[in-house]
Amino acid sequence: MRTLIAELKATDGGKRKVSVCGWVHRIRDLGKVCFVLLRDRTGQVQLVLDRKPEFSVESVLRVTGSVAANAKAPGGLEIQVRELEVLSAAAPDLPLPVNQDPARLSLEAVLDHRMISLRNPKILSVFRLQSAILKFFAAHMRNEGFTEVKTSKLIGTGTEGGTGLFAVEYFDTQVYLAQSPQFYKQAMIASGLERVFEIGAAYRAEKHETPRHLNEYVSLDVEMAFIESEQELMDLEVRILKSIFAGLAAENRAELEVWEADVPAPDDVERIPRLSHEEAREIAAARAGRRVYEINPEAERLLCEWAREEHGIDAVFVTAFPRKKRPFYTHPLENRYTRSFDLLFRGLEITTGGQRINDYAMLLESASRFGLEADSLRDYLDIFKYGCPPHGGFAIGLERLTQKILGLDNVKEASLFPRDRRRIRP
Amino acid sequence: MRTLIAELKATDGGKRKVSVCGWVHRIRDLGKVCFVLLRDRTGQVQLVLDRKPEFSVESVLRVTGSVAANAKAPGGLEIQVRELEVLSAAAPDLPLPVNQDPARLSLEAVLDHRMISLRNPKILSVFRLQSAILKFFAAHMRNEGFTEVKTSKLIGTGTEGGTGLFAVEYFDTQVYLAQSPQFYKQAMIASGLERVFEIGAAYRAEKHETPRHLNEYVSLDVEMAFIESEQELMDLEVRILKSIFAGLAAENRAELEVWEADVPAPDDVERIPRLSHEEAREIAAARAGRRVYEINPEAERLLCEWAREEHGIDAVFVTAFPRKKRPFYTHPLENRYTRSFDLLFRGLEITTGGQRINDYAMLLESASRFGLEADSLRDYLDIFKYGCPPHGGFAIGLERLTQKILGLDNVKEASLFPRDRRRIRP
Repeated sequence: MRTLIAELKATDGGKRKVSVCGWVHRIRDLGKVCFVLLRDRTGQVQLVLDRKPEFSVESVLRVTGSVAANAKAPGGLEIQVRELEVLSAAAPDLPLPVNQDPARLSLEAVLDHRMISLRNPKILSVFRLQSAILKFFAAHMRNEGFTEVKTSKLIGTGTEGGTGLFAVEYFDTQVYLAQSPQFYKQAMIASGLERVFEIGAAYRAEKHETPRHLNEYVSLDVEMAFIESEQELMDLEVRILKSIFAGLAAENRAELEVWEADVPAPDDVERIPRLSHEEAREIAAARAGRRVYEINPEAERLLCEWAREEHGIDAVFVTAFPRKKRPFYTHPLENRYTRSFDLLFRGLEITTGGQRINDYAMLLESASRFGLEADSLRDYLDIFKYGCPPHGGFAIGLERLTQKILGLDNVKEASLFPRDRRRIRP
Repeated sequence: MRTLIAELKATDGGKRKVSVCGWVHRIRDLGKVCFVLLRDRTGQVQLVLDRKPEFSVESVLRVTGSVAANAKAPGGLEIQVRELEVLSAAAPDLPLPVNQDPARLSLEAVLDHRMISLRNPKILSVFRLQSAILKFFAAHMRNEGFTEVKTSKLIGTGTEGGTGLFAVEYFDTQVYLAQSPQFYKQAMIASGLERVFEIGAAYRAEKHETPRHLNEYVSLDVEMAFIESEQELMDLEVRILKSIFAGLAAENRAELEVWEADVPAPDDVERIPRLSHEEAREIAAARAGRRVYEINPEAERLLCEWAREEHGIDAVFVTAFPRKKRPFYTHPLENRYTRSFDLLFRGLEITTGGQRINDYAMLLESASRFGLEADSLRDYLDIFKYGCPPHGGFAIGLERLTQKILGLDNVKEASLFPRDRRRIRP
């Protein structure tokens, strides 16, 4: 019967024989005695061997022995090994070290050898935290009466003009990978579910090579009916973020500590300011010392800096984007602007959203203004032709949220198997 | 302030004014009085209007009025309307009726007009139940210490020989849509997470046109380390199914009743028999009255029939498939067979799984036996070269599970926006 390393603390030290399994994290061979640090999914424990180890790091062992207290051992316990079985021997030529601070490794090396670098406990902790984000997000949505949906990622035509799409050979025709579940989320609003969320892959065929872009990412999508304005959507996002942050603070201290990271307090999240696009440009310009025409990455950083100083929270909602900067389905505001918003968090846009046009005639007019053919949008337009309540929604980028919570330099560090222009493996 | 229709029951009938929002499900115009059935995400209520309605079915209304008891009204309540606002007028030429039994409609029509047919409450209930399956599945996995992962669906090479893959134009090269997260699940085992699950899309470029196939589906993937044999995987699947069924029985009675469906009792799930492939073939042959060489769809039906009669549960695990019928990474059993299994449920295979080879030399040998080049598998093989514990896993098809729980004729009915050889819209 296997005992997990984290459970060892509960056993009465020194007497009871226990069996543990895990990976060899480190070997310190002192000749007469050999210390092996063993790693399982719950922690690490020191093994004491009275002989030379016949295995190298990363080998998988099952050992049986007695647990004893040792103040010098990591965690204060050690196992005097009686029986040892090598379940899987690791080759000695590891392509990169697993038991060192990953800051010493280049991102290229970490991603090239992803199958191995994920074994590093600090790197792996990113994805333990990410799993928790998924849990707290879904739990919050369900608590507010949202239904989880799974929509197709293979679409006949682009949703937003056809640029930036990956083409897929689909039997005798061609389809595209969806940039977002936008049209489907809206269909599900109109279906009568009223409140839906989706956790799914999104694809952008954009040739950027920046620390903030991925060509494939996980989108946390939300859509809600019967809203009065986009303000309710920002209110909802505030509640979601509060839930996620509170959950992480309660259950994921270990991962946050490894990265010396922290999540905003609930009260601070409540204080996230809401600036119009014009106000945001002015504030960014004042800090940059020159004109700012759009909220580019530099402006995102400056605005979050401003919010931290003025409001005590490193985040800003930018609202009322000009109409030409948002997709055709975005609800207009005073003709020139839109009922849209972005959320900038710790210097990075992590959410785009807004109220959508739900009036059929207005949508036809907007599509035409954007040069889109109604025929190519027929399925989508039917949603509105046959009755659709006022609604809106947004999407949070999972990897960007993870990145910014942990303070990672590059969003690719927050993707298990990131895809960029050149990276299609492992 | 909007009141949800399901909450109307709680208001003191007749006095308090309430405001409800929803879709016009049905209109019965008697001249002097008009009854309108209004539908929101929680239920339906009768509205009483003293004038001719100026809207058609599926229009979205906001009405204010007083709630009164009326034994003849659906749900026993009705709203005497004082104020009425048409939030979104529906065109009168609905492509298919929303308020009728969908059994009267062809599947073609239902899927062609998916944006509209989803409004039918019975059709929509399929996806309310599916959302609950996702919830109960994830909750169970987390309770057993599994970490949720999200892996790339864009892969450089096929995992199982390269057949049946959709090609994607990826900048200057070509990649493929993943058939399963198999290799990545195994990488995550070896990473030290030990127990992972993934809810993600899977793609099969197969030209079949059957009621049991989709070219894109949602796979509930599970992988677990430190197992002794494939028996533990079947034990795990039994526990998962018990959780899902118990959850649905407790919280999704409404959806089950709409489809006159039921879930197996926990005790019955415990009794699912485990037959070797050879035993299964013999039983199927005895019932078919002729030789059975493989567990084809007819054999799947016959075996579930047998299990229902003999064990009181409409499900069977078929184990020990011959080696040539399983992928190269499947752990062998007595050389000719494998430590693999399928789960047949109500006449349909809903799960494939097994113990995987975790020994590097054995895996190299198996790959070569299957004619695969080690070079093309380099990233994958590294998982095992550097220490990987014994492990295995399985995948449950979400749409098939949904289909069989509700007794749907075609798996496409359990996919929001199904993709098949000819269907790429809506």
